[in-house]
Amino acid sequence: MARIIQCVPNFSEGRNKDTIEKIVEEIRIIEDVKLLDYSMDKDHNRTVVTFIGEPEKVIEAAFNACKVASELIDMRSHTGEHPRMGATDVIPLIPISDVTMEECVELSKKLGKRIGEELNISVYLYEKSAESLSRENLADVRRGQYEGMADKLKEKDWVPDFGPIELNEKSGVTAVGARMPLVAFNVNLGTNDISVAKNIAKSIRGAAGGFKYCKALGIEIKERNIVQVTMNMVDYTKTPLFRVFDVIEREARRYGVNVIGSEIIGLLPMAAMIDVADYYLRLENFDHGQILEKRMME
Amino acid sequence: MARIIQCVPNFSEGRNKDTIEKIVEEIRIIEDVKLLDYSMDKDHNRTVVTFIGEPEKVIEAAFNACKVASELIDMRSHTGEHPRMGATDVIPLIPISDVTMEECVELSKKLGKRIGEELNISVYLYEKSAESLSRENLADVRRGQYEGMADKLKEKDWVPDFGPIELNEKSGVTAVGARMPLVAFNVNLGTNDISVAKNIAKSIRGAAGGFKYCKALGIEIKERNIVQVTMNMVDYTKTPLFRVFDVIEREARRYGVNVIGSEIIGLLPMAAMIDVADYYLRLENFDHGQILEKRMME
Repeated sequence: MARIIQCVPNFSEGRNKDTIEKIVEEIRIIEDVKLLDYSMDKDHNRTVVTFIGEPEKVIEAAFNACKVASELIDMRSHTGEHPRMGATDVIPLIPISDVTMEECVELSKKLGKRIGEELNISVYLYEKSAESLSRENLADVRRGQYEGMADKLKEKDWVPDFGPIELNEKSGVTAVGARMPLVAFNVNLGTNDISVAKNIAKSIRGAAGGFKYCKALGIEIKERNIVQVTMNMVDYTKTPLFRVFDVIEREARRYGVNVIGSEIIGLLPMAAMIDVADYYLRLENFDHGQILEKRMME
Repeated sequence: MARIIQCVPNFSEGRNKDTIEKIVEEIRIIEDVKLLDYSMDKDHNRTVVTFIGEPEKVIEAAFNACKVASELIDMRSHTGEHPRMGATDVIPLIPISDVTMEECVELSKKLGKRIGEELNISVYLYEKSAESLSRENLADVRRGQYEGMADKLKEKDWVPDFGPIELNEKSGVTAVGARMPLVAFNVNLGTNDISVAKNIAKSIRGAAGGFKYCKALGIEIKERNIVQVTMNMVDYTKTPLFRVFDVIEREARRYGVNVIGSEIIGLLPMAAMIDVADYYLRLENFDHGQILEKRMME
């Protein structure tokens, strides 16, 4: 099987195109890695880069990009609206195909260790890679931002996972961690009654007693005169799309409302879609290796 | 998008492993081509090879394999139970991903022309590549077998599409053509009454007034004490799996019988499964390019 992970590093530079091109070039030149997207935000003074590929090659590309960022970006003169703590602010690693979360956690530690040791940058492991509950949430890790990091690194609870306790003033601090891919999934309802969408969203979202890995809101789609349950599916392996879709359909029926369609925004792993087909066809013993394209990627 | 076609050439040699290894090696060594399977049949004295890859590279591999077969196999001494007319008996080309049937037909003509001109082997275009109705069916094209080809090639209606009218006695005749992938799809029913499976099979198969691109039979699965509708879906783009599955479920209901599961035997294109998910989720405007693995293959 083709092993694929995704990496979505955020760099604290959104204005100097030359700098970003040099960082991105480090990703472009690595074989078995595909650069999917990068978008510079001037107000945030921040660039989000998306790439996928063979796990070891993704780590290599991420390290090289982080190294160039540490050479070209100086946090001492960085301003921007988005919270940030380092030149390479955060590096999420995301399992896509034939890679477990445990493997992604190991990869994040390997990457964090290299950044700490070879680039002399303090690194916090976050999300699934966090070694304590207090470091799981990126907002907690980044609290105090770049300006507060010199002191934070010296706090007993905030000793970095890798790299120096003394702040690298030029490069700041980098968070590295493994997380699941996020699938943006919306279901459209045949009514303009926003209370129906809000009630259904409440019934399915994890925070309110619904599906643990589903975040949901009810919103209006004014140009179509309908309402929508808009969701972030934060672990499609444990809260699959089909289960949530079926429950939305049943809940809508209570209000005499039909599901008129759904949409997936952006990218998602093939497995999230194959699982849907597998469920509705009630497939017995289907192996994703039966898909010709998977064989091609072997 | 990653353009992929499949090729399943049949060679008239199923006993001499050395010969087959030399033929298969021509496929193995081509980059961007994946050898998926090859199986020698001693009784048929025939080997079926399955490979996929970038269209132009697949054609190159198929031509090279055909060339080696023409050097190593001598049809004058060939015996075996399976009907055959050439050293390379038949070369089907099958669109899998981001390739149209029309493109596959063009590729088959390009390949047939090279075999005719460079190897001096007579070639018939069959299936979707056939230029007349009488050549669509492989059984019609192969009728008379190797032994009858010297005369057949000289008949007015059987002038070859490429290559000589005089039989190449060593290599025989080769059929080249484009066809759709075949998806083997079975649906299991919660009864041991074979008449239910037979009736449902009849209601869905094209030949009896059902779905044009569905071949279906009702059979018993004795070890599970159930019956099954076993199908060959010969064009999943025009007769999709979900539509046939839904009709089977509705027909079964007439008999008070439940669909207890289904199975896909062997390989299938990703699109055949994504179409199922798309249908049941009622997706609006889903593009297969949203699947990360497709991006990886670009």
